[in-house]
Amino acid sequence: MNVVAATGGGLLERRSFLRSGLSLSVAAMATGAAHAQGNAAAPIGSRFPDAMKSMGAGDAPYGQPSPYEAKVVRTESRTAGFSVWRSPLQEQRGIITPNGLHFATHHNGVPDIAPDQHTLMIHGLVERPLKFDMARLLRYPMVNQIHFLECAGNSAANALSLTALDHTLGDLAGEVSCAEWTGIPLSYLLNEAGIKESGKWVIAEGADGGSHARSLPLSALMKDGMVALYQNGERLRASQGYPMRLFMPGWEGNVNVKWLHRLEVVDAPAFTKDESGLYTQVLKNGQIERFAFPMEVKSVITHPSGQQVLPQVHGFYEISGFAWSGRGRIAKVEVSADGGDTWALAQLHGPVLDRAFTRFSIPWQWQGKKTVLMSRATDELGHVQPSRSAWKSRYAAHSFNHYNAIQAWQVDKDGRVENTYA
Amino acid sequence: MNVVAATGGGLLERRSFLRSGLSLSVAAMATGAAHAQGNAAAPIGSRFPDAMKSMGAGDAPYGQPSPYEAKVVRTESRTAGFSVWRSPLQEQRGIITPNGLHFATHHNGVPDIAPDQHTLMIHGLVERPLKFDMARLLRYPMVNQIHFLECAGNSAANALSLTALDHTLGDLAGEVSCAEWTGIPLSYLLNEAGIKESGKWVIAEGADGGSHARSLPLSALMKDGMVALYQNGERLRASQGYPMRLFMPGWEGNVNVKWLHRLEVVDAPAFTKDESGLYTQVLKNGQIERFAFPMEVKSVITHPSGQQVLPQVHGFYEISGFAWSGRGRIAKVEVSADGGDTWALAQLHGPVLDRAFTRFSIPWQWQGKKTVLMSRATDELGHVQPSRSAWKSRYAAHSFNHYNAIQAWQVDKDGRVENTYA
Repeated sequence: MNVVAATGGGLLERRSFLRSGLSLSVAAMATGAAHAQGNAAAPIGSRFPDAMKSMGAGDAPYGQPSPYEAKVVRTESRTAGFSVWRSPLQEQRGIITPNGLHFATHHNGVPDIAPDQHTLMIHGLVERPLKFDMARLLRYPMVNQIHFLECAGNSAANALSLTALDHTLGDLAGEVSCAEWTGIPLSYLLNEAGIKESGKWVIAEGADGGSHARSLPLSALMKDGMVALYQNGERLRASQGYPMRLFMPGWEGNVNVKWLHRLEVVDAPAFTKDESGLYTQVLKNGQIERFAFPMEVKSVITHPSGQQVLPQVHGFYEISGFAWSGRGRIAKVEVSADGGDTWALAQLHGPVLDRAFTRFSIPWQWQGKKTVLMSRATDELGHVQPSRSAWKSRYAAHSFNHYNAIQAWQVDKDGRVENTYA
Repeated sequence: MNVVAATGGGLLERRSFLRSGLSLSVAAMATGAAHAQGNAAAPIGSRFPDAMKSMGAGDAPYGQPSPYEAKVVRTESRTAGFSVWRSPLQEQRGIITPNGLHFATHHNGVPDIAPDQHTLMIHGLVERPLKFDMARLLRYPMVNQIHFLECAGNSAANALSLTALDHTLGDLAGEVSCAEWTGIPLSYLLNEAGIKESGKWVIAEGADGGSHARSLPLSALMKDGMVALYQNGERLRASQGYPMRLFMPGWEGNVNVKWLHRLEVVDAPAFTKDESGLYTQVLKNGQIERFAFPMEVKSVITHPSGQQVLPQVHGFYEISGFAWSGRGRIAKVEVSADGGDTWALAQLHGPVLDRAFTRFSIPWQWQGKKTVLMSRATDELGHVQPSRSAWKSRYAAHSFNHYNAIQAWQVDKDGRVENTYA
């Protein structure tokens, strides 16, 4: 067992671990010999399972998940018209979130918009006010990019609750997902309208019952903005803004205005309800941060995570999760299996994309003791995920947006995993 | 209008095209002025569409596509138990195919397999025959990779039909899709079993009513093979092999054995039904190619494509499509808008991944004349997509697997697009 320890907490050096053949730990049931000895736990069984003995069922024009995975769904929390659907991150592998499980926040429900009735208007400080219908927009050049999307208020419970709540990862931090977004670079449309010299900001408004509107700096929209029409290869779903939404890679979810119908070029921000109130951060000294758009560097361990149970004491496990930053690529992720005393570099699984989930993993031999697992991401600009106490020291007690502190999981002696403030 | 022509067929040089502001062609409806003049075709309309005046609907735990996109589904063709579900490629943008639209081929229907009843057995020429249940497999280290998957028989109609069939792209060539696959490198499991010196091939068998089995070279499985458990972030669907399938990046679909339950290490191929019959290629001289696994370099234009209609004569269009190769990355895609007389380089949209769809596009000014559009992909190893006649000259008249010839679309004067053999 020539496996090299990477830290004191049982994290393993990857190459030596793979050379060991994994047999040290996960150890599948042996078949032949065990069967000969009458080991009931490891029967060789039939080589012809029942499913091979009959014709299978038909398929459907639009496929659905396995009925055996019916528990893998989003969970809703709701306050009057405001509802949040959190993605079950603890069930996700890889970096792409399937459309059916992508998180969503609705300020006043999901409007039903017939695409042939919908238009996008660009007006205000422009040379030529323009209106686009869907048929026209679908003829424009498009780009396709894989990006995460995160609600400004994701992980609010960890920011606000005095004690760590024993929830699943999805219920704690599931207002983030990652998908391939395809649409029209906004610069094409804004250039066609012709921006006047005085135009510096753009008010983006959704055609929903919440009349959701946000002011965004024109320069950023010209560089990165997209009118997104497709998500993971198919047209946006109603929940994601059908027939179109604004998309700003890396920026807090609510500025990616869904059901987009109007872009008004203006000389200064409008200070709409949501940008002067809900989507601001109150600092410790009472000052308020507004228009703080990019989401911070962050990571979460998805396996193992809250409410999961490690089935085998002294067993091998792969610690796996994802990291992301609203400012660029992930440079590294460190993992601790001893509550932050020692850290080891996790492997990043490619492709490592700009402002997208990056999957990380590291092998771990659990020693059977109570311990705490943590992950800490660093992005290519050098931003590092803070501890919870460092984050709390910056913001007022009731502030919760842009919470990106290290997520810690306590592993009990019996293998149960639980949210903790380490 | 300083737009530079890239070819004689109306293809445009991209940078000069973008500098032109696109106003040359797609030209959205002007609002203000047009409205003042009472131009009924361009009303400014209300700034408050109906959807803004009421609360929207609720959302669902597992989301579904917009009802307005109900036509975007797979189409089935069926012969007894053998059924093929083709993906509507002409509706896809970007590179990721959503799980609901991923193509599928079933040899004898879709089995219903309870995951807690399913096991994977590795036996034959191994030191330790092993059996894995799902709980064990889910603890192994996993990798996540974006790859296309293509049926060996994709585009069979173009290979076999004497006249070009007037079908949509999906119905012609929709047995290919691209997704993020996550699973366990097969080398981990094979190493744990311990391969005997004499072990050279592996028979992979599915637990379906078709008893589908294929022989694969051990060396390739050790290098690239994966036991795939997740597709686009969620567990495989029944149609894709739930609870597990073999995945071999770039190799013809049927060797990616679905409902995988048995891997038998052997010293020579088994010559199963499907590898000595259906999934072979007959050459012009009567010789038979067997075990030709990687799918060839190929591309298709998705927009515009078969049965679509260009709405505006002399209008601007973006020609867009995807390219892929079972042997590596796409190096370049050339597009012709004059039936192959002249070719221009298309833009490749990143990320350009190994054995994955790569999206390409090029701007095009349609001159309103009957013409033929074509795309020709080259991979990083220098393989080039052949013409149909070159492909046909290599294979027997009734051979149809691994068809990768250039797909040509005829554009009629009225803008209708139709499959053609150019």
